[in-house]
Amino acid sequence: MYTADGRVRAHYAVYADWLTRQQDDALRDMHTRDGEALKAQGVEFNASFIVGGQIRGEPPRLFQVYAAGNFIEATADTSYFQIGESKYGKPIIDRVTRRSMPLSEAAKCALISMDSTIRSNLTVALPLDLVIVRRDECRVASHVDIGPDNRYFQMIRGAWGEALREAFSALPNPDWLGVR
Amino acid sequence: MYTADGRVRAHYAVYADWLTRQQDDALRDMHTRDGEALKAQGVEFNASFIVGGQIRGEPPRLFQVYAAGNFIEATADTSYFQIGESKYGKPIIDRVTRRSMPLSEAAKCALISMDSTIRSNLTVALPLDLVIVRRDECRVASHVDIGPDNRYFQMIRGAWGEALREAFSALPNPDWLGVR
Repeated sequence: MYTADGRVRAHYAVYADWLTRQQDDALRDMHTRDGEALKAQGVEFNASFIVGGQIRGEPPRLFQVYAAGNFIEATADTSYFQIGESKYGKPIIDRVTRRSMPLSEAAKCALISMDSTIRSNLTVALPLDLVIVRRDECRVASHVDIGPDNRYFQMIRGAWGEALREAFSALPNPDWLGVR
Repeated sequence: MYTADGRVRAHYAVYADWLTRQQDDALRDMHTRDGEALKAQGVEFNASFIVGGQIRGEPPRLFQVYAAGNFIEATADTSYFQIGESKYGKPIIDRVTRRSMPLSEAAKCALISMDSTIRSNLTVALPLDLVIVRRDECRVASHVDIGPDNRYFQMIRGAWGEALREAFSALPNPDWLGVR
């Protein structure tokens, strides 16, 4: 954000403008309403965001914004961001994500990642919001609310766990440890 | 630990005695040496442990000890503990662990879990120490140092990632999102 690259600064201005208009008022309201009560419990008021989009005629871009307002941008090497309870669901993303993967495959990856998170942390639960934006369309292509009745997510929950257990069984146990 | 159950208290006494002798001196030395320097960096001195073992004639038991000295014990429902960078490696343990699994299979699970952690957090690295204690032997059955040359761990690294990618590909992509 402090480079001599004019395009980067122009994007930042657009992003900052958008973020300010959309979220600053909401953030201030939340801070006014809950800040003191949180502080009394020893909790610092905090927020982080993932902001993605496209300015027509330019490539799509993705930013992660930290509480202090500083941010990082996704690159070819780091092509995704997570916020919140991110660690349980990270390994599957690390293993399968490629920038060239189709959007529906990326959605499958995101849902498997969330399934792992839900299984490992009881405070994370359905419903999930899934939003897909296609390159050069400059609008939301799909926005679905995935609840307990979603048949595809039910399939993921069952089939992914079963596939993992099968893959686990297929690998040989270590026979060099002196134990069964 | 404050129940009227004499056996639990007896175990606690043995555990506390062991912990005191083995670790208290080391902890105090560390605190004397590093406590002030850590505090100057805004880091609280902290430590947690997993303590497992068996008193001859009784079942094996496993405890997780928090920094304040309070602890929890593994049960039929929660049959394992992790400390440190635990989240990346938790989903595979949650999916496959059973109390009845053979020790070598449990070792395989632990190594896959550590492989996921190493891949998702660059500050975690080999070597790994793996210790196995068999029921009723009251001694360490196997203690190995797993470094980059360990053929079995090399196999795990390659084959597990490959198996995950295959399992991922085998699941159908969502065809109800309106995107490829």
